[in-house]
Amino acid sequence: MHAAIDLAAKLATFKEAWQPRTVSLFNGHDVMVARLRGEYHWHVHPESDDFFLVLAGALEIDLEDGAMVTLAPGQLYVVPRGVRHRPRAIGEAHILLIEPTGTPNSGDPATAAPRRVI
Amino acid sequence: MHAAIDLAAKLATFKEAWQPRTVSLFNGHDVMVARLRGEYHWHVHPESDDFFLVLAGALEIDLEDGAMVTLAPGQLYVVPRGVRHRPRAIGEAHILLIEPTGTPNSGDPATAAPRRVI
Repeated sequence: MHAAIDLAAKLATFKEAWQPRTVSLFNGHDVMVARLRGEYHWHVHPESDDFFLVLAGALEIDLEDGAMVTLAPGQLYVVPRGVRHRPRAIGEAHILLIEPTGTPNSGDPATAAPRRVI
Repeated sequence: MHAAIDLAAKLATFKEAWQPRTVSLFNGHDVMVARLRGEYHWHVHPESDDFFLVLAGALEIDLEDGAMVTLAPGQLYVVPRGVRHRPRAIGEAHILLIEPTGTPNSGDPATAAPRRVI
């Protein structure tokens, strides 16, 4: 409470890839940090845009229409709701991710990472 | 469309302080960058949390209970809705700001900066 949230310090508390940690709440959303390594699977969030801001490393996001967005540190992209996408880290990428609280990161509650607040 | 949004490049397109520019949309919110210099006035957003992530420089946020949050690059703070606050840049600060589309940055439509999408 009433304290700055240092994103690098939060990222230093865990090592697992594709397992976002919630660091703050914002208007019904979880503000999360995550480490990404390798390629995730194609998925979609029908009800929510998907906010990616790269903090370190590099990220590619394949989109269903064949486009690819490449993100370096300090660059963001919002995947519009309903658009299938596949994120892929080049090496290890650290990201800030914002999704409505309860959104499964995989697009499917059966395969989603558990919600972890740190 | 389908392109990374480079926050530093967006910030380089303008010089005015306390005049946020919208760089993306996300779930009914404007994702904005802003340059901050000096002290803003006390204000409140009754209906929305206020998301601040410092990209460069340093920011202090006074809160109505007397607390002060100090933010360096890579640090964020969400001012809870209804909490009066006063941001103050130390030198010039560059921030990422997220607010519901239509939220007056000053808390009052009469004094708010106009919405500018870049």
